[in-house]
Amino acid sequence: MTDVIDALRETAERRDREGGHAAREKQLIADVGLLTIAVPRAYGGEGARWVDVYETIRAIARVDSALAHLLGFTCLQVVSVTVWGNEAQRERYLRGTVENRWWWGNAVNPLDTRLIAHATQGGGYRISGQKGFCSGTRGSQMMTLSAHDPATGKPVFAVVPTTRAGITVHDDWNPVGQRQTDSGSVSFDDVELHPDEVLHRSEAPPSPRATLRTLVSQLVLTNLFVGIAEGALREASDYVAKHGRPWIHSNVERAADDPYQLHRFAEMRLKTLAAEALATRAAQALDTAWERGDALTADERARVALAVAEAKVLAHRAALDVSEALFDACGARATHAGLALDRFWRNARVHTLHDPLDYKLRDIGRFAIAGTLPEANLYS
Amino acid sequence: MTDVIDALRETAERRDREGGHAAREKQLIADVGLLTIAVPRAYGGEGARWVDVYETIRAIARVDSALAHLLGFTCLQVVSVTVWGNEAQRERYLRGTVENRWWWGNAVNPLDTRLIAHATQGGGYRISGQKGFCSGTRGSQMMTLSAHDPATGKPVFAVVPTTRAGITVHDDWNPVGQRQTDSGSVSFDDVELHPDEVLHRSEAPPSPRATLRTLVSQLVLTNLFVGIAEGALREASDYVAKHGRPWIHSNVERAADDPYQLHRFAEMRLKTLAAEALATRAAQALDTAWERGDALTADERARVALAVAEAKVLAHRAALDVSEALFDACGARATHAGLALDRFWRNARVHTLHDPLDYKLRDIGRFAIAGTLPEANLYS
Amino acid sequence: MTDVIDALRETAERRDREGGHAAREKQLIADVGLLTIAVPRAYGGEGARWVDVYETIRAIARVDSALAHLLGFTCLQVVSVTVWGNEAQRERYLRGTVENRWWWGNAVNPLDTRLIAHATQGGGYRISGQKGFCSGTRGSQMMTLSAHDPATGKPVFAVVPTTRAGITVHDDWNPVGQRQTDSGSVSFDDVELHPDEVLHRSEAPPSPRATLRTLVSQLVLTNLFVGIAEGALREASDYVAKHGRPWIHSNVERAADDPYQLHRFAEMRLKTLAAEALATRAAQALDTAWERGDALTADERARVALAVAEAKVLAHRAALDVSEALFDACGARATHAGLALDRFWRNARVHTLHDPLDYKLRDIGRFAIAGTLPEANLYS
Amino acid sequence: MTDVIDALRETAERRDREGGHAAREKQLIADVGLLTIAVPRAYGGEGARWVDVYETIRAIARVDSALAHLLGFTCLQVVSVTVWGNEAQRERYLRGTVENRWWWGNAVNPLDTRLIAHATQGGGYRISGQKGFCSGTRGSQMMTLSAHDPATGKPVFAVVPTTRAGITVHDDWNPVGQRQTDSGSVSFDDVELHPDEVLHRSEAPPSPRATLRTLVSQLVLTNLFVGIAEGALREASDYVAKHGRPWIHSNVERAADDPYQLHRFAEMRLKTLAAEALATRAAQALDTAWERGDALTADERARVALAVAEAKVLAHRAALDVSEALFDACGARATHAGLALDRFWRNARVHTLHDPLDYKLRDIGRFAIAGTLPEANLYS
Repeated sequence: MTDVIDALRETAERRDREGGHAAREKQLIADVGLLTIAVPRAYGGEGARWVDVYETIRAIARVDSALAHLLGFTCLQVVSVTVWGNEAQRERYLRGTVENRWWWGNAVNPLDTRLIAHATQGGGYRISGQKGFCSGTRGSQMMTLSAHDPATGKPVFAVVPTTRAGITVHDDWNPVGQRQTDSGSVSFDDVELHPDEVLHRSEAPPSPRATLRTLVSQLVLTNLFVGIAEGALREASDYVAKHGRPWIHSNVERAADDPYQLHRFAEMRLKTLAAEALATRAAQALDTAWERGDALTADERARVALAVAEAKVLAHRAALDVSEALFDACGARATHAGLALDRFWRNARVHTLHDPLDYKLRDIGRFAIAGTLPEANLYS
Repeated sequence: MTDVIDALRETAERRDREGGHAAREKQLIADVGLLTIAVPRAYGGEGARWVDVYETIRAIARVDSALAHLLGFTCLQVVSVTVWGNEAQRERYLRGTVENRWWWGNAVNPLDTRLIAHATQGGGYRISGQKGFCSGTRGSQMMTLSAHDPATGKPVFAVVPTTRAGITVHDDWNPVGQRQTDSGSVSFDDVELHPDEVLHRSEAPPSPRATLRTLVSQLVLTNLFVGIAEGALREASDYVAKHGRPWIHSNVERAADDPYQLHRFAEMRLKTLAAEALATRAAQALDTAWERGDALTADERARVALAVAEAKVLAHRAALDVSEALFDACGARATHAGLALDRFWRNARVHTLHDPLDYKLRDIGRFAIAGTLPEANLYS
Repeated sequence: MTDVIDALRETAERRDREGGHAAREKQLIADVGLLTIAVPRAYGGEGARWVDVYETIRAIARVDSALAHLLGFTCLQVVSVTVWGNEAQRERYLRGTVENRWWWGNAVNPLDTRLIAHATQGGGYRISGQKGFCSGTRGSQMMTLSAHDPATGKPVFAVVPTTRAGITVHDDWNPVGQRQTDSGSVSFDDVELHPDEVLHRSEAPPSPRATLRTLVSQLVLTNLFVGIAEGALREASDYVAKHGRPWIHSNVERAADDPYQLHRFAEMRLKTLAAEALATRAAQALDTAWERGDALTADERARVALAVAEAKVLAHRAALDVSEALFDACGARATHAGLALDRFWRNARVHTLHDPLDYKLRDIGRFAIAGTLPEANLYS
Repeated sequence: MTDVIDALRETAERRDREGGHAAREKQLIADVGLLTIAVPRAYGGEGARWVDVYETIRAIARVDSALAHLLGFTCLQVVSVTVWGNEAQRERYLRGTVENRWWWGNAVNPLDTRLIAHATQGGGYRISGQKGFCSGTRGSQMMTLSAHDPATGKPVFAVVPTTRAGITVHDDWNPVGQRQTDSGSVSFDDVELHPDEVLHRSEAPPSPRATLRTLVSQLVLTNLFVGIAEGALREASDYVAKHGRPWIHSNVERAADDPYQLHRFAEMRLKTLAAEALATRAAQALDTAWERGDALTADERARVALAVAEAKVLAHRAALDVSEALFDACGARATHAGLALDRFWRNARVHTLHDPLDYKLRDIGRFAIAGTLPEANLYS
């Protein structure tokens, strides 16, 4: 994996500048077998523990948080099939992921309700409309989607090959950060969904185990943030070692001896470290819950959700703060656009807006003030 | 132990007001056997893992950080004998602690050099002078001390019974917080030290294992701070549950639903939680290092020191911040002197000044900027 | 005034410890004529501009924020008569304040509705019940009060001599800070209110000018906080100059050269300075509004309210932060109870709970997000 | 001026993306006469007070901090001529600025010593070498420069037309923010300096008045930061008004009613406001000092320097914090690259690295701890 990380780091500046699709780099990740880390061993995957999955995501995020997100979201779709699919679907899609090294796209954005499904005879659907923020869809082989069925008022979840007739993946993702997450929009023009492509997630109420999917997703974000903070801190220390100059009025000989730099780096490290500690704790809690399988209770699940929320707040803040302080550490010459050192902050800034921190804090506050555990919902 | 904690909590306000010596409460702690948690099993003690020792200290600190400090420092003197003593001394003092439930005092303050030792024939000394900040000495049965030997220019470390002729423990401890830590001054008037009371800590250079004592001490402080933060948070949520009233312009019916209260409690919890996570991590690192025994390398020891410093910074801040926010959470009526809710802040404020945070941050910064590990010294 | 301030400073530690009533010090303040600074010149007072009134309050608060509060609240009752009274009442009470050097008490706490007024023939009332948090009442000669008239459902505002038959001022004020503000409870046992003692404030709706009283009150609090921050900063620099010792690992010769101390003092100063700047700005806005007299519009008044809220937030935070950092600046020896250096934090902590900061922030946020000005209410 | 600001705002996103030289926009600024605001009236200029100069700079910085910097630095070169030039030079260059609407470039970077001057007969020089970070030079008509004279070891300061033979202005400025400040490098190939182009600034020691130039420069930076914060805050409130959507779990109907948004906007406003207040205060102090002329003492000058440092710290932080919070306020859709809303943060981030905040804090700390005023140097 070191080779992949080195390769990603080498081109990260350029790819940040150009944006668009990282076909070559996605291939490198597929080639070393990372797409199957979250596939259970029963289906030929690595079946890694969540702490290990997230450590992998974090390691990539240190150098390229966009591609780390793509890997994380492929793992997320694998989980979607694992918890929402039936045995035949798991066999088909999970084993398929192992055998074909599929990258998965995500058209499940629950706040975008423009995609409409009409039931056909035999349990299938035909779907038409749009979906935005479809991370990973461009360049994917398979995708999950959610659509609105006006006849029942309920959502339909399904898996389709990205190449299915009627699906158009648009090249319209152009944000100020996380520029290669392939998160553009997708159009569906009377696309056929076969009955055996429909996932049964929608049957209410979902089991505590099924709702772990949301927590898997939130921890992907959390670990991206931790990785960004770690990466920014490493860039800062590397830069100071190579290019640091003491300030003319500092009375020290080496930039690394400046007392204020030492305090700055200490704060950068402490933020990163605390975020990492809570992220690891949350991943361990998720592993424990995951192993409980269908025996998992709502209360147990909610305690994991709480741990995830706690980790996410610290990781969110660490990513922003450390990537900003990077520049105070490195000084004016580090602002050259060719270095693109602002990509850490831009990546953090874009991705931390996925869902608002305020409501994670509210969840945590409810527990702290009165012991109330978070409800399972689209973001918690 | 629950009974002891309940008993301490019940009288904490009054004892904070009155200050002085908590003879009855110290007896309760001794009676349930807590004085031997750090005594190795080989000498009849509990030989608890450090994570468990610190969890015990933290649990007491939640309701009474002064008595938690006394227990922590008795453990510290036990460690002093363990790492600085010879086998006969360990046998005598550690087994003695188990058999007699000794409270230990500490006259080792390295910044106070007013106590002078003159060697006598046979390897003993006679000592005279003063020592300040002698935590736990009042009401103790045994004490450790350090004195300056002008003939060699080196410090002498020893154990003496507190009742030894010539020792006067003064009732002069009157700080704004941590009022019952019995940390007043002690006078020594030509006190005899027997040869077998002298600990051999002073032979340079101390082994990495021997210098773990400083880290044991720093983690006692750290866990007091964590306990104070946890205790203040619990007081705040209890108070809001019992007495909370929504602000007249809040448009909520219960204080616990006020959105700003929720954010406040979230921040209180996050600070507490992050401190607790790093404190636990550091205690685990200490356990691992402790088990390495004499094989422990300087580098391994320094990594524990780093982890301790990191935990201490977060714990220091959590204790101060949470104990201050307690009042915003509870409102004006919580300032009645009879409740003494300010004792959390005063306790935190006094104890966090033991040694300056700035130099813990400097140590952390040196590692973050250039990978330099902290040196073993009196505070690290 | 310098003599008064020096006298207050000299005994501040002792009086903080003892609490209770500062009869001698109140006499000193009366003797130098400060009780009339807010009395308009038309009634023989000094008629000072608000910026000067608040600078006086701040100057006293630097050494004794409890007595500064008493002076500020005497000014506030003077304002109550000025804006709620008729000409005869102004003549009687304002000129009386000048001629008799009255200290005024405040029994107007709007959240305490236990005091009941029954109308008597001729426009007077008889009142019975309790009132809490009656700042300044003990030791006062005159007081303002509000009571609930169950017949009309409206509040009654009035002035009575504190010695009026049936009034009992209780010695029950015992908080953890601001210990000499004489803010205990007062009992009223069938107390007679003469018709000409009733203030006509209650006729709805109050004019914008009349509601400036609330802003006068909020700026008293604000300037107490500024004064506390300034006082704590001065104590810190004085202490470091006299007793400061460089940390053993600092490699500097004087505590005042420690780089981390320099940053700490810079932050202390910046917080204080920003609070002072906004407090002065708000006082200037109040002066301008005050001079507008009855021509003052609701919108103009609301802009002053916004400026007051902004200043209060910064002052609240400065007082708490600087009084806490005072100890990091001074070190462990500064925690001796005899110095009572924690009184700055305790005073700040108690007084900043008068009304919650959260709702000041909400007011400011409403303006920042959409230009909505604060409504006039009991606290704004 | 409103037209110019509207025009700058309209193209700010595009010009941020493209970088390079804003010829058309610079012409607009020149056309409305802003280049002469700092030229004394004696030479036909507007001779505006510094508070007004900085308010103009701030107003432009709200929409385009790069062009605000260009204007500020043209004012700075005007000041250089005013305080370093002789009467004939002031007449020629200041009146020339009025008559010809010259933009001025700055090749005075004191940390770059690669430009060498050799004296010629008659008091002129020939200069060769490089100079970096030459803000405003591209597209300018006139420039100031400093060069090193190896014969005397002293710097030479001079004014030359940018078109002088041998001068090449490079198109090599490509930072991550402040992209149109024309701050690339300039080569000098045996460029002739006429005797009457040499400014006499270098005769030691400079008068307190002459060293005000540095404070003019630091306040240009400060007001850019204030303008960035104000601009970011306005963008945020505009965006929320137009596009804001309440979070699905917020239970409010309008984004502007979300309690957490209200607190966020309050914090954004308070940071901006405090920075603005201290910046205005510092500009007033500069005005007073400026009017003192040659009578200005070193101590008076140093007090202005302190006020400037204080304002700069708050402005630095406000610019970074508010431009980051802008995104939390606006949400994920605001990250579209077409909006370029990250330009506020990137502009703030680049420009705040001009010289390190740490040493401004050190200066402030020295005053706060011991009353020591800052020394006049290249950055203070």
